[in-house]
Amino acid sequence: MKILNRSEIVSLLPQVELVEQLEAGFVQYSRGQSVVPPVGELLFDEPPGDVHIKYGYIAGDDFYVIKIASGFYENPRLGLSSSDGLMLLFSANTGELRAILLDQGLLTDVRTAVAGAIAAKYLAPKPIRKIGIVGTGIQARMQLQYLAPVTDCRDVLVWGRNPQHVADYQSAMARQGFIVNPTASASRLLEECNLIVTTTPSRAPVLECSGELPNGLHITAVGADSPYKRELGPGIVRRADLVVADSISQCLERGEIHHAVSEGILKQDDIRELGSVISGDSPGRETDAQVSIADLTGVAVQDIQIAKAIYLQSVRDGAPAGRRL
Amino acid sequence: MKILNRSEIVSLLPQVELVEQLEAGFVQYSRGQSVVPPVGELLFDEPPGDVHIKYGYIAGDDFYVIKIASGFYENPRLGLSSSDGLMLLFSANTGELRAILLDQGLLTDVRTAVAGAIAAKYLAPKPIRKIGIVGTGIQARMQLQYLAPVTDCRDVLVWGRNPQHVADYQSAMARQGFIVNPTASASRLLEECNLIVTTTPSRAPVLECSGELPNGLHITAVGADSPYKRELGPGIVRRADLVVADSISQCLERGEIHHAVSEGILKQDDIRELGSVISGDSPGRETDAQVSIADLTGVAVQDIQIAKAIYLQSVRDGAPAGRRL
Repeated sequence: MKILNRSEIVSLLPQVELVEQLEAGFVQYSRGQSVVPPVGELLFDEPPGDVHIKYGYIAGDDFYVIKIASGFYENPRLGLSSSDGLMLLFSANTGELRAILLDQGLLTDVRTAVAGAIAAKYLAPKPIRKIGIVGTGIQARMQLQYLAPVTDCRDVLVWGRNPQHVADYQSAMARQGFIVNPTASASRLLEECNLIVTTTPSRAPVLECSGELPNGLHITAVGADSPYKRELGPGIVRRADLVVADSISQCLERGEIHHAVSEGILKQDDIRELGSVISGDSPGRETDAQVSIADLTGVAVQDIQIAKAIYLQSVRDGAPAGRRL
Repeated sequence: MKILNRSEIVSLLPQVELVEQLEAGFVQYSRGQSVVPPVGELLFDEPPGDVHIKYGYIAGDDFYVIKIASGFYENPRLGLSSSDGLMLLFSANTGELRAILLDQGLLTDVRTAVAGAIAAKYLAPKPIRKIGIVGTGIQARMQLQYLAPVTDCRDVLVWGRNPQHVADYQSAMARQGFIVNPTASASRLLEECNLIVTTTPSRAPVLECSGELPNGLHITAVGADSPYKRELGPGIVRRADLVVADSISQCLERGEIHHAVSEGILKQDDIRELGSVISGDSPGRETDAQVSIADLTGVAVQDIQIAKAIYLQSVRDGAPAGRRL
């Protein structure tokens, strides 16, 4: 049994083909080749926090994976990250524990960012002229980082509530080769960018349009992963030609699609699933003029694929993992 | 963060007051002071296996606990135990991982056996004259072991399918001071014993009666923990004066009570909960002539309490835990 700590996982990450692994996972999920039960959830009041347990396996695979991810939103006052977590990888043949990945939530951040890159790869209009980012936190950074291999575009417009965080974001992203301009008006992102990624835990729409939207736009919403969170206003969803969910069943209960369907703006039959778009089983974007939305709430199959990839790479490496706790 | 392996846990076990801790947990559960979501479940076909995820916390506690337990029934062919698992203990204030208990299913076996002892303590007629055990596996052994502090009775009648396993059981239990006689007829247990514990994963009743049952009998059923498992026939449940569940909501979906309610033999309103009997909120046994049944399907609150007890003892010990993986 291997125990990998966060720094060991960080050193393994560049060696694994995450886009390929996650695409395969999404396709197997959409083809019904995975077993992914409903998310387990534990809520706390004082202090406020939530814990999600995502778990499952892909049929015929050697492993099953359980991921525990927590958010305790008052942690920053104590100098701690609000998000934490770990992944457990077991033999699907004997139930034996094979690996504990003490990633403290890193792999959740990474697989979410990789899913954003995959959504852009399949759904964004070509070429991507300018990237809009809503939010300035860890996911706002990682989305850009993982978009870099998918597009040559380095021109970024960012919107955030806190000017200091926006300035920090600009300089951090500049070090990775992005030219980031801030805007005080989120609606400017809709006017200037043709790829937008929303990354906030907002409970009220951050992006909204009252009627018109420019042609040729893709929005990936990764912030809303629970029933009460929401980043996109109803006008945006109403205008979309194409709405893609990472998991239709999960997005009917959480995230942007959940709100749009319950408001009657979107019909369940009109939602496509990311894995089906990747495989070609469902059509994706048909013209560069279309407006598309990808709603990513995070599916266990992503956790399964990233945990497997890291574990198998550590085995190939014969890494010193498990000895340096 | 502490990592305790199985042998470290074994050495801590005698130092903790498990009966007291589990009784407190059952009472808090029955009084609605715990948060215990439905059990997460993952099923496997080839080879057959099942994984259960039990998790939750007690209101106001410093910890939440997640327990993963697996059963892969072809493991013995590979020289492996069919059951495996681990427990994770986290801060309920920050989400930080505090301990990984690599017990490989031991603590599940122990807390199940302790719950059996608690059921006998509150529900068995006095005095216990002879103990009947159905099955010869690990739980059949541990139930007797944990009954020892609750009763002076050492006279045991055992029924098992495999004569070699029965003989092994007799000698193993003799080493712990029990005088064990075997019987080829399970119904003899009903005639001779006034405390019976059933411990098999049977899918068809092992104990049944066609009409009469002797007065003064308590049966604890711990084997059936899933919807399809069952050890007690309908005649037994029909004759019982008192039926107690570890969790009413869970027993309506799994175990003996689930079958009896769906067959119309037992009314939901007539079921009492173990924590309420312990606290006195519900009446327990009223006369030594009554026939009572305790259906124990295993509740997360037991896992919470035993994981906390082991962790806190390891902290008090300043044990070398976590250094000797």
